[in-house]
Amino acid sequence: MHFNIFSIAGVCKLMGIKHVVLSPGSRSAPLVYAFASNSCFTIHKVVDERSAAFIALGIAQQSKQPVVLICTSGTAVANYFPAIAESFYQHIPLLVISADRPKALLNQQDGQMINQNNFYGTHIKSFYTIPELMDKELLLNESIKITLNAIQDIFSNEMGPVHINVPLSEPLYGKIPNEFQLKKIESLILRNEKFIKSNSLQGQIKMKKTDFNLLQKAWLSSSKKVLLLGHDIHYNENVTSLLKLKHNNQIVILSDVASGQYDCATISNFDKLLASLSKNELEQLQPDLLISIGGPVLSKSLKKWLQSQKPNHHIRIQQNKPIVDTYNNVTKVIYTTNEDGLKSLASFNFTGNKTSITYKTRWEQLSFQLHKKVNTFIDKTTQWNELSATAIVLKSLQPGVNLQLANSSVVRYVSWLGSSLNGFVVNSNRGTSGIDGCTSTAVGAAMVNQRQTVLLTGDLAFLYDKNAFWIESIPRNLRVIVFNNMGGGIFSLIDGPNKIKKFTHYFTTPQKQSSVKDVAQLFGLDYYFCNEKNKLEKTLETFLNPLSSAAVLELKFDMQVNAKVFQHFKNIKL
Amino acid sequence: MHFNIFSIAGVCKLMGIKHVVLSPGSRSAPLVYAFASNSCFTIHKVVDERSAAFIALGIAQQSKQPVVLICTSGTAVANYFPAIAESFYQHIPLLVISADRPKALLNQQDGQMINQNNFYGTHIKSFYTIPELMDKELLLNESIKITLNAIQDIFSNEMGPVHINVPLSEPLYGKIPNEFQLKKIESLILRNEKFIKSNSLQGQIKMKKTDFNLLQKAWLSSSKKVLLLGHDIHYNENVTSLLKLKHNNQIVILSDVASGQYDCATISNFDKLLASLSKNELEQLQPDLLISIGGPVLSKSLKKWLQSQKPNHHIRIQQNKPIVDTYNNVTKVIYTTNEDGLKSLASFNFTGNKTSITYKTRWEQLSFQLHKKVNTFIDKTTQWNELSATAIVLKSLQPGVNLQLANSSVVRYVSWLGSSLNGFVVNSNRGTSGIDGCTSTAVGAAMVNQRQTVLLTGDLAFLYDKNAFWIESIPRNLRVIVFNNMGGGIFSLIDGPNKIKKFTHYFTTPQKQSSVKDVAQLFGLDYYFCNEKNKLEKTLETFLNPLSSAAVLELKFDMQVNAKVFQHFKNIKL
Repeated sequence: MHFNIFSIAGVCKLMGIKHVVLSPGSRSAPLVYAFASNSCFTIHKVVDERSAAFIALGIAQQSKQPVVLICTSGTAVANYFPAIAESFYQHIPLLVISADRPKALLNQQDGQMINQNNFYGTHIKSFYTIPELMDKELLLNESIKITLNAIQDIFSNEMGPVHINVPLSEPLYGKIPNEFQLKKIESLILRNEKFIKSNSLQGQIKMKKTDFNLLQKAWLSSSKKVLLLGHDIHYNENVTSLLKLKHNNQIVILSDVASGQYDCATISNFDKLLASLSKNELEQLQPDLLISIGGPVLSKSLKKWLQSQKPNHHIRIQQNKPIVDTYNNVTKVIYTTNEDGLKSLASFNFTGNKTSITYKTRWEQLSFQLHKKVNTFIDKTTQWNELSATAIVLKSLQPGVNLQLANSSVVRYVSWLGSSLNGFVVNSNRGTSGIDGCTSTAVGAAMVNQRQTVLLTGDLAFLYDKNAFWIESIPRNLRVIVFNNMGGGIFSLIDGPNKIKKFTHYFTTPQKQSSVKDVAQLFGLDYYFCNEKNKLEKTLETFLNPLSSAAVLELKFDMQVNAKVFQHFKNIKL
Repeated sequence: MHFNIFSIAGVCKLMGIKHVVLSPGSRSAPLVYAFASNSCFTIHKVVDERSAAFIALGIAQQSKQPVVLICTSGTAVANYFPAIAESFYQHIPLLVISADRPKALLNQQDGQMINQNNFYGTHIKSFYTIPELMDKELLLNESIKITLNAIQDIFSNEMGPVHINVPLSEPLYGKIPNEFQLKKIESLILRNEKFIKSNSLQGQIKMKKTDFNLLQKAWLSSSKKVLLLGHDIHYNENVTSLLKLKHNNQIVILSDVASGQYDCATISNFDKLLASLSKNELEQLQPDLLISIGGPVLSKSLKKWLQSQKPNHHIRIQQNKPIVDTYNNVTKVIYTTNEDGLKSLASFNFTGNKTSITYKTRWEQLSFQLHKKVNTFIDKTTQWNELSATAIVLKSLQPGVNLQLANSSVVRYVSWLGSSLNGFVVNSNRGTSGIDGCTSTAVGAAMVNQRQTVLLTGDLAFLYDKNAFWIESIPRNLRVIVFNNMGGGIFSLIDGPNKIKKFTHYFTTPQKQSSVKDVAQLFGLDYYFCNEKNKLEKTLETFLNPLSSAAVLELKFDMQVNAKVFQHFKNIKL
């Protein structure tokens, strides 16, 4: 048996890693044994590696702690890639540990082997290979050092994925180390850990004093201030600062629907609001000082609005290069953590500067007017359509729910509606905005959450990632609501694809009428159905009952009606 | 509209490309329009990009012609990776054309964007980016040149995948070029093609004269000659040479079960044979001259046998570096095409040299004895088990069938049984030996074949790649036989995983009793079932009827019985 592999598991244990997602394979057997024989890990077995990696991502998205992924050699590693790219852009901590064959066999037709060396290229924070050493003592030490360094890399600066490749020669099976040997490994780990810790490069990152002064000066000299929060899983560490800022009359907070802090937004319906205002009003709302922080923002109307202006100050707060300048108007970058940035902003609570409270008030008035109009629209629309259904679903959710938004039309509906999501935890894979792992991510989230986890998804994303359910036991707290418009409805909403009718065919999804139901049957999930507005609330009541099992609710729509209603919705102006 | 994109399609047309597999997306719309508006292409729409790429691989595996893959930006590109790796190692011609966003937006949080630059790293023959030029004339010319070069790369030396990345800025939708404009594009293409052709590096590759002489000398001086044919899709170009060699009494041909030329093997049951012989007999059979050619060989007993010896000559024929020396005993590499190598060998038809005909005869005698023993064993085994079922299935197939072997236990059973596969076309993804795309590959094969395409697969591979069926119309000539041992039975056959009982759990697959049936239901496939030896032939008769629809036949087994029967089978010695 490869003793050094037990040291890898040992380091992960010491560093507090709790969850391991593994996929069956032969070459990875020593890794499986080392982790599975250690009772401190919760092992999740997921056969399809693509889903496995997204499930790990879902677990890490919730716990903010690194999750270990174990797979065998060959294309297993490639199947992780979509989730690795997403975790890289979303700053999710993952530790990929891939089994490999001895390097000398590469390109020697030895079967099930690809070039796993630095496989994820620019989409991984760092890459290590466990050396193939004959000296067991040295190998043990090296394995420990590499694993310690790898885990440190996950945490350094912004979090993200790290990859350790483990070439393993035969025999792959054998005796597991005994108590005494394990103890010896443990003491080696502790000695190494001390060394690594004491020689860490990592210091506490804080804003430079000059940057702080500059930020404060910009704050004092600007009367129209907007703080823009993009997608980020780490805001919850900053709740105090965010609440303080929310109640500060001098600044307007716009927060991406999936930012994780949507309920800190002053103006929850800014997406639709910015699409509904006159040119004149939009100009009035332009900030003098824009502070942007975090990841991407979904709203296209916000993007269009921001790209059209050159504020006096657009201060971008971020931890690392490269400079993110989505709207082409950044005037200054301040390198620091989100936490430090928000803390500094929250400390600016001056009175007597030239800030006009009427700026925030104006936003709030407009937002209120729009809310009223939208509510009336939803109430009055009797036809069964996705937008109204989304509104009803959001109203039916209980506080404390973990809401997962797939990259389908529905995430846009939620953003457009701008309903309060107060009390919900909201997540969405907006790093690369793929549909490939939305369900798996929700499954991962439900696995480690006590909360009810509700995934809102479309038929395309649902059918794509059906292997998410191919696990031993689907968590009871999972609820999946599928907005089924029979294929790729989003393409009818986005301008463009609907322009060339002849080709619409190439943008839609082939499916049987009963596909969603059949998938539920395949995986033994309870199945609910609704296609009437006045039955939805009642259906949701049973479906969302915490005492029920994991279940799928299919909401079936006519895309023509959706498109028509949505056109009317778009026409709502202030 | 991006006119230059029409030139990419134009070049593909000119170069004789027929099949395009595309996955829906927004950024890729101009690519979709350009290819779909050209009636010379057959367009296959496949939503799940992982399956799409394997379906393309299946089409190319059959047609030996490049197949175009079109996807949108972001993780779509990553989902192609498993099939790209397989096509790279299996030398399958694929042309990936990925849509991308303008380079300047990378890492600017613009959504659905990853770093697609040289994405497939060392697993692609070459990578190109269409430049983002303002000058439309220049852009057109560049696009044409790049596409011509890319297609030339696919064919240069051994075939393989090539990637063109296409950054596309908005607007993505607009007018399609008119007749006049298309004509202009076409004349530009023709001019460029002439230039590229006349300046091609590619010459006809032939063996050096000195190498030919050396090969001939080795042939003449050796009495025990073995030709080993590994996995390769291109043997059918060499049928004449192979037949000549097969009927040459001076040489024994051993051919991998999935080599594409299994029926050229002199000894079809060499896998089991080499596992059944005494040490003394194995030494007797050692060749003086081993000539190896093509890709990997599945047989572990062959590998073990060859690795244990140092033949006077082991001449490896291959086209490119790196040297493939799977058995660590290559004495000379001759660089040439398989075609040229086999032709040269076929020309050595001397009499009067010291070749002992008894060498080949001895192999044939032993092979015959083993065949008899194995047949008796299969006949006498009344218990329902995978090995016997495989034998019955192989006997029931009609000549002309296209047989696809998944990387499950079944490909090993076929190799161990060593039954004649005469008249079948046999394919298997042995480049990286993954289970991730076996069904999709078979679907792709069935799409372009007039033949009945029969996939033999296991439950793990079948359930993994179920999205293979998520297409508009499943080809009627497809038949899928699922050997269901309720999860990962292969791990009970391979020595090792069964050694540590406590962990067996981590190697098996979770599934409902009805999973295979439910998948058939989900995709509207006819479903058959059998779990009795004496009913199998009858079931196969209906199932394989060419007039029936696409269908799945589930054969359900008890893994305990499989393992027991297999143990008895292993004990057969000569």
